[in-house]
Amino acid sequence: MQRNGQAVKTVCDVLAQRFGGQFQTSTSLREQHAHTMTYIASQLPDAVLFARSTDDVQQAVQVCATHGVAVIPFGTGTSLEGNVNAPYGGISIDLSHMNRVLKVSTDDLDCTVEAGCTREELNDYLRDTGLFFPIDPGANASLGGMAATRASGTNAVRYGTMRDNVVNVTAVMADGKIVHTAQRAKKTSAGYDLTRLLVGSEGTLGVITQLTLRLYGIPEKVMAGVCQFGDVDAACRTTIAAIQAGIPVARIELLDALQMEMVNRYSNLSHAHQPTLFLEFHGSENSVGEQAEFFQALAEEAGGSKIAWAEKQEDRNRLWKARHDAFHAALAWRPGAKGVPTDACVPISRLAECVEETRRDVEALGLIAPIVGHVGDGNFHVLPLVMMEDADEVSRMETMVKRLAERAIAMDGTCTGEHGIGQGKMKYMALEHGHGWEVMSAIKRALDPGNILNPGKVVHF
Amino acid sequence: MQRNGQAVKTVCDVLAQRFGGQFQTSTSLREQHAHTMTYIASQLPDAVLFARSTDDVQQAVQVCATHGVAVIPFGTGTSLEGNVNAPYGGISIDLSHMNRVLKVSTDDLDCTVEAGCTREELNDYLRDTGLFFPIDPGANASLGGMAATRASGTNAVRYGTMRDNVVNVTAVMADGKIVHTAQRAKKTSAGYDLTRLLVGSEGTLGVITQLTLRLYGIPEKVMAGVCQFGDVDAACRTTIAAIQAGIPVARIELLDALQMEMVNRYSNLSHAHQPTLFLEFHGSENSVGEQAEFFQALAEEAGGSKIAWAEKQEDRNRLWKARHDAFHAALAWRPGAKGVPTDACVPISRLAECVEETRRDVEALGLIAPIVGHVGDGNFHVLPLVMMEDADEVSRMETMVKRLAERAIAMDGTCTGEHGIGQGKMKYMALEHGHGWEVMSAIKRALDPGNILNPGKVVHF
Repeated sequence: MQRNGQAVKTVCDVLAQRFGGQFQTSTSLREQHAHTMTYIASQLPDAVLFARSTDDVQQAVQVCATHGVAVIPFGTGTSLEGNVNAPYGGISIDLSHMNRVLKVSTDDLDCTVEAGCTREELNDYLRDTGLFFPIDPGANASLGGMAATRASGTNAVRYGTMRDNVVNVTAVMADGKIVHTAQRAKKTSAGYDLTRLLVGSEGTLGVITQLTLRLYGIPEKVMAGVCQFGDVDAACRTTIAAIQAGIPVARIELLDALQMEMVNRYSNLSHAHQPTLFLEFHGSENSVGEQAEFFQALAEEAGGSKIAWAEKQEDRNRLWKARHDAFHAALAWRPGAKGVPTDACVPISRLAECVEETRRDVEALGLIAPIVGHVGDGNFHVLPLVMMEDADEVSRMETMVKRLAERAIAMDGTCTGEHGIGQGKMKYMALEHGHGWEVMSAIKRALDPGNILNPGKVVHF
Repeated sequence: MQRNGQAVKTVCDVLAQRFGGQFQTSTSLREQHAHTMTYIASQLPDAVLFARSTDDVQQAVQVCATHGVAVIPFGTGTSLEGNVNAPYGGISIDLSHMNRVLKVSTDDLDCTVEAGCTREELNDYLRDTGLFFPIDPGANASLGGMAATRASGTNAVRYGTMRDNVVNVTAVMADGKIVHTAQRAKKTSAGYDLTRLLVGSEGTLGVITQLTLRLYGIPEKVMAGVCQFGDVDAACRTTIAAIQAGIPVARIELLDALQMEMVNRYSNLSHAHQPTLFLEFHGSENSVGEQAEFFQALAEEAGGSKIAWAEKQEDRNRLWKARHDAFHAALAWRPGAKGVPTDACVPISRLAECVEETRRDVEALGLIAPIVGHVGDGNFHVLPLVMMEDADEVSRMETMVKRLAERAIAMDGTCTGEHGIGQGKMKYMALEHGHGWEVMSAIKRALDPGNILNPGKVVHF
């Protein structure tokens, strides 16, 4: 794909006329829509269209397809790998105004929303139904964007990721045709799984405009706990034992010793500077008690501390504060530094080893980088705090990220558990997938022969 | 695709020379490999290759690709929609000798097997590990075949389907190249979900030769129960209430009144001739007791009977006997008739209505057809017992199946929840998927431009 200035001008003229004030070309808006949240340089789209319906998206994609101009779907812009950058210019289609909850079925435990609806908007809407949508990637991301990046987060260990919780999507494809990937039945064997193909495709195969999601009953009881360990290995062994034993832990988050020191200072807490698990159990009164007791026994076997428990909402919030503040605590630790989040995911049996090797590598490279992990899934984040004006430090950070991706892949894991490929992880696709990357690219070429949908991401063309 | 006799001859000569006794052309073996288990007429392959390795499969596919000859992957031949038929002849690749368990990771709760390993072989192998693989489609199918048809069965309500339990597959693609669809991490955001694309593709995109599967700890306690209801609606309402309440029921199977009458006679039981739920709960001692008590309360609210419970293995087997004997009880009910199984799946809120309308249609058409359902998923089976020599009855059966598929689709459901498309359900793909069927077909054309992999199934070319 190449940016064709004349084609862009034609498309902008057509869209401006058709959409009036929904279509914007101001630099500030264009900058906002290419803001990567990370150290990846922004690449601005030529214009932004605020879509109000699937029909709007369809019209815009058709115009862009006719003239070979790029289309970059945009939800809330909270992705972390340059996923919304516009390396070839083109039109950013902002779906944030498409944020209605269209339908909730309490009998079927599902709901249908427009793609721009955020997870917090959905959960606010559901407040009186006794149901909730569990996937929580941290940011208040749009549900369409979460589907597109196959997001997950802290409670994926119990509720799964977007892969598991999207029932179907409506998407506008590169030819401007609308696809509804599946019906609303809980399972089907009727052909290829187009839902799972679009989930995680990062806008390169279609623009998701609506989706149906699975919902869950709000648990009768929630119990939170904090448990500290002598080393990461003991925390990981306890996690493995708990999952093997079938304890349906809802959240199990690891903070390494450095991250604990950071949150202590930031939030004025007094935890030991040791690897720590933050826990949450969901269930009935009895079941939660049983889970907690069982977990405590397993933790003790691995030399873990006595667990501090909290039951009431405000106590649980206080207990989890350290985890929730982790990102800001890290930024405050080194004023002036940029946080450059990266993630990887390995089989849980390799997690302690992968975290420890990464820890040593961070130290060897003279970086400051706390580690936080969704350990029940073998997924962890490293957050190097980097002075971006120091080219040498930036280069050492890049070395660390590269070695981490390669280390994870060598351990039968993946270069990203939940952030996606975007631009930042493209260089690991061939290593991780081998011929599979060619298959992905062949699918892309078949469904988007003009390479207009989010070009330059995920696949090669 | 057309069968090219000269090309077939060439391929057979090459394969016979390369594979010796692994390559067979006897009519009886060819018949066995096209046996559809159903009323769909057999269409024989030209030959059968008993593969012993991924390398064997790769060599065979390469030869077939060179000469444009069809390849039909074969596991145990227990599929129900003509999925292994060979309408254009070609080579049936039998994977049943590739049945090794290659690796079990108790820490990661997964295992890697060759595609021909059956689910019973796997569970036998796992016996001493405390782990099991839950998906149970009834037949002792091969795990590769189960992945290819996205199989599920009685305990999908708790453990999910093959969609949820396949971590990765190794497959030989139409160009003879080998794809390993994912690493072994529990989750990933690294590109398109090739695993989910191959799961459910019924051998039309690649020949699955190995796969990694999720395993589960054998529950500490299992409790079974039987509960009878005044009508299907009451049974379904109880099911919905249980799932809304978050009871993690492991199995919840509906047998309609006719099916109960059949199993009573066949197995000499004395259940009332009423819609009946067969239940199973998995968990800790306490949790199972709690689940059972809660379920009983919900059943009573809907007018259900007092539940008959069983805890010990042999008592549970006795209790579940009626369910396990359902198929044979139906066949025995009408000697000389052929059982023609069909399935559909709808949102659970529409299940009672869909079952009742189907029941009325069966009666209106003068058919005999019991109904059995995996009601927790909204999935049910109808088993018309048909005298195949009576053309009028066959035609009425076909009408019933067609109306059922259309009814399910109209209710936002699918024409098949777990049997797959094969040849039998091709005619509903356009209705169910609209433009999505075109997208599926475009993917097929991109990955198998010669249409050699299981041609005539799932997609149009």
